Amino acid sequence: MRTAAELFAEHGYDATGIADLLARTGISRGAFYYHIDSKETLLFEISRDQVEYMNAVAAEIVAGTGSAAEKVRLMARALIRNISEHRAEWTVFFREFSALTGARREQILLARDQYEQYWREVLEDGAKSGEFIAVTPLHVKGILGMLNYTYLWINPQGALGPEDLADTFVDLLLYGLQAQVRG
Amino acid sequence: MRTAAELFAEHGYDATGIADLLARTGISRGAFYYHIDSKETLLFEISRDQVEYMNAVAAEIVAGTGSAAEKVRLMARALIRNISEHRAEWTVFFREFSALTGARREQILLARDQYEQYWREVLEDGAKSGEFIAVTPLHVKGILGMLNYTYLWINPQGALGPEDLADTFVDLLLYGLQAQVRG
Repeated sequence: MRTAAELFAEHGYDATGIADLLARTGISRGAFYYHIDSKETLLFEISRDQVEYMNAVAAEIVAGTGSAAEKVRLMARALIRNISEHRAEWTVFFREFSALTGARREQILLARDQYEQYWREVLEDGAKSGEFIAVTPLHVKGILGMLNYTYLWINPQGALGPEDLADTFVDLLLYGLQAQVRG
Repeated sequence: MRTAAELFAEHGYDATGIADLLARTGISRGAFYYHIDSKETLLFEISRDQVEYMNAVAAEIVAGTGSAAEKVRLMARALIRNISEHRAEWTVFFREFSALTGARREQILLARDQYEQYWREVLEDGAKSGEFIAVTPLHVKGILGMLNYTYLWINPQGALGPEDLADTFVDLLLYGLQAQVRG
């Protein structure tokens, strides 16, 4: 799965054949098809594993105690850590997701919506309690854009760890750029 | 160029052949190769046109008068309007850029860095004048992530125009989510 993600991320899903994957992994064609029925199954499982993992993490954070700001921070840290550790998988998910078809496409769409829904819940709870400004689905899109986009440039060996990076973004999102409003 | 961008955005750059483009546009092979020497030239020109246009717009905004916050707003509005109007081109740029090679790849990388540089300049000027908090290149990445990511979901026929959408993001970036800090 990891090798498939790397090949799809490097060369694109359409341009990568099963033969490339067999060559890179040394797995025989017979052994491969014993476990996996098609290339699309690989794309599906790569996408599903990451999104479902993030949903499990988000469910736990949302159900936990703490302020909305603390939950935003935990969710951002978990997402950016996961993107940093599974950059090839996220690259495939973001770039190649549209190649999925039928029920599997639906399942990933639902899982992705569920993840957005967790974010919406945290932000709306924050708004209801007076901690945050009124939020809209657009705020969720913007915040997820900032976080997700790291897949394009994050360096797992960089000086800043994924949590530091998430904290910079969360501070920006919570307090904004304006110096005076931070007091 | 527009049709090539749409085909690359729909099916991926690798999976789209010149034959597909000729079929969709009705252009003859001879006429095509009279103007364009290769598929990579199309990818290059699609990418270059958008980034260079945004650089021209940014240069004008940066050189203009107004606060850093006003410049951030103008730059965000211009970018999201352009993404909304050229969604296929931006999809190709973000997803397929890595297929470019040699000097043309270099040229696009430089143009993209230049665009980031304009943003950095506005944010750093804002920090120097005391309008903004201290900013780092990471803030630039985060802000551009929020704005660029709209290419994945923006609807040019949506109820919110691109400028409204940009304003929501700019307000979030300037003032943050925390209710109390906005007074």
